[in-house]
Amino acid sequence: MAVRTPDPDPDGRPSDDEPVEYGAAWLTDIELEQLRHRIPIVYVEAVPVRLDGLGRVIDVGLLLRATPMGEMRRTIVSGRVLYGETLRDALFRHLEKDLGPMAFPQLPASPVPFTVAEYFPVPSESPYFDARQHAVSLAYVVPVTGTTEPRQDALELTWLTPAEAASDAVCSELEGGRGALVRAALASIGALP
Amino acid sequence: MAVRTPDPDPDGRPSDDEPVEYGAAWLTDIELEQLRHRIPIVYVEAVPVRLDGLGRVIDVGLLLRATPMGEMRRTIVSGRVLYGETLRDALFRHLEKDLGPMAFPQLPASPVPFTVAEYFPVPSESPYFDARQHAVSLAYVVPVTGTTEPRQDALELTWLTPAEAASDAVCSELEGGRGALVRAALASIGALP
Amino acid sequence: MAVRTPDPDPDGRPSDDEPVEYGAAWLTDIELEQLRHRIPIVYVEAVPVRLDGLGRVIDVGLLLRATPMGEMRRTIVSGRVLYGETLRDALFRHLEKDLGPMAFPQLPASPVPFTVAEYFPVPSESPYFDARQHAVSLAYVVPVTGTTEPRQDALELTWLTPAEAASDAVCSELEGGRGALVRAALASIGALP
Amino acid sequence: MAVRTPDPDPDGRPSDDEPVEYGAAWLTDIELEQLRHRIPIVYVEAVPVRLDGLGRVIDVGLLLRATPMGEMRRTIVSGRVLYGETLRDALFRHLEKDLGPMAFPQLPASPVPFTVAEYFPVPSESPYFDARQHAVSLAYVVPVTGTTEPRQDALELTWLTPAEAASDAVCSELEGGRGALVRAALASIGALP
Repeated sequence: MAVRTPDPDPDGRPSDDEPVEYGAAWLTDIELEQLRHRIPIVYVEAVPVRLDGLGRVIDVGLLLRATPMGEMRRTIVSGRVLYGETLRDALFRHLEKDLGPMAFPQLPASPVPFTVAEYFPVPSESPYFDARQHAVSLAYVVPVTGTTEPRQDALELTWLTPAEAASDAVCSELEGGRGALVRAALASIGALP
Repeated sequence: MAVRTPDPDPDGRPSDDEPVEYGAAWLTDIELEQLRHRIPIVYVEAVPVRLDGLGRVIDVGLLLRATPMGEMRRTIVSGRVLYGETLRDALFRHLEKDLGPMAFPQLPASPVPFTVAEYFPVPSESPYFDARQHAVSLAYVVPVTGTTEPRQDALELTWLTPAEAASDAVCSELEGGRGALVRAALASIGALP
Repeated sequence: MAVRTPDPDPDGRPSDDEPVEYGAAWLTDIELEQLRHRIPIVYVEAVPVRLDGLGRVIDVGLLLRATPMGEMRRTIVSGRVLYGETLRDALFRHLEKDLGPMAFPQLPASPVPFTVAEYFPVPSESPYFDARQHAVSLAYVVPVTGTTEPRQDALELTWLTPAEAASDAVCSELEGGRGALVRAALASIGALP
Repeated sequence: MAVRTPDPDPDGRPSDDEPVEYGAAWLTDIELEQLRHRIPIVYVEAVPVRLDGLGRVIDVGLLLRATPMGEMRRTIVSGRVLYGETLRDALFRHLEKDLGPMAFPQLPASPVPFTVAEYFPVPSESPYFDARQHAVSLAYVVPVTGTTEPRQDALELTWLTPAEAASDAVCSELEGGRGALVRAALASIGALP
């Protein structure tokens, strides 16, 4: 089974959505694959939430993806930070990619994540696992105010109550140990039962 | 000189804006004055900011007030938490009172303040001072998305750049040592020069 | 049943351990009882932990108390902030009271709590409940490096693994909804399963 | 002038201090130099502090280095995270390297940094600059309890008061814009004037 940090985009490879100006920073797929086993890769992740007028969380958004083997897995918004890209730009880019252009996410004013998830390709003391790479991921809670429309290989965005999202049943379906990440996200906003 | 935690509202006294149901929790002005010197008072404070689409701070909002002696002082949104009131409700109430009903503040999802300011009525190790009371204040950065219209005794809301707001000149005009609070607010969002 | 914020000390009443100089701030038991239903009371709480040399949590300390009815309840270090007292002083005082003089707690450099727990005397949206009062509690994770010796009415300090402390069985035994607090504490240090 | 993220160690190259087992992750100096301009590099940084018994900061430790051109520059503890290395291990390794083996740093229980500093090789909106690379740096305040003995190319560790460390004079001497980082560190512990 290939549990992996979801990264459906041809990372670093110029696409229609991205400015093509990385020059020497351009990485072929093969180069990137090699790097993933030689150096920690910087990631950003986002747990999308819907808030009421007082900032209380109403719903938590989880993505549903099909793995190459046709297994359904839950995940969150997640992706690599490119060379020269700010964390904010990367966060915005991956939110748009996973939630669509009308999600209107409220990016955090603070660069401080609610947690830092360390993904290792081998079992470790960390709850997070990614067969593909060693990733250091800065994780944020991001309120969305618009309409979500998952793109790419995400089949669906499901909105769950905090209690549902924190349940053992749901957390065990999250890939790479991200159940712990969703619970930490909820705890950081005072919404973990 | 009466440097004080701004609290223009008749705290805890039912007003037109507030539901009149505090029952036994109702405190007369005299009772409240006495309490302020016998028990720490819970406060919330907010540094209003305007953000761009990526969450970067553009402007910081500071209030201008006239003291009873006619001196002009800068301050931030600040006020007491009432008995039975949640921190969110208190924050929203004071934001509306100081910024008007059309400010559309984005209350934080997280209850964790960027700092806790301890105001003492006598000079102390704390940078914060309030001749009137011992207050423990939970301070938040709050993005506003609407139109501000200061009410009450605030004469004006001034929008400054982060660099201006953090300057010695401006910080020294903030009452009760709140220059340190504004700088800490900016630091918490990565915007302190 | 009287689930309550543990506060075994004669709050604010001069005792052998405390300097007797609060003057007008001195509150009789009766006065304090009345205040608890008229104004939010400032609390500090601490989840004691033992760390290894790299800062990873090994154990979480929970107190065991007998209620007046002889029921055993788990709790954490918790107590009121007195008039004129800093949060640090209050935290240190309650840690010493609950863990003994040789616990050598490492008080946090930062005044920012990992969460703010709002205790209300009636059922509310908050997970925290205290029949006695409305309390606003700043909660910290505090590493202890010495030997603990519970005093006062705490019968025992039990060291549990993070997984044990976060379990439903243990969390349901924590009084006033503090299971959510212990989980949030663990999440804040990346140790919530 | 080559303002750079201090990284005196032959990064990733096995040395006497490090276990030699990175296998395919081993990077030659040339390979690492190339990577620094193709992918963001994960860093950890630490602002060493000395605390009193209540957790209040007494002193802030800044390193003094000579640049290759003989210019004296201040900096903080800083270094790369290796493939397969946890953030804690990296933090400990760099603290030991820069402060010596008897510094006894208290690594934070929480993986959440007080800020994330983004270093870019070209002038940007970020206050942080590193001619050598794009680095994403997780920055922590780390209390030290032992005796410091700078090693490597650090000439000296200077202990300053928070006010001195936050002064314009000192902050302007910090390389790569780290004056903002030191101020943010102080703000995070309530010690920024």
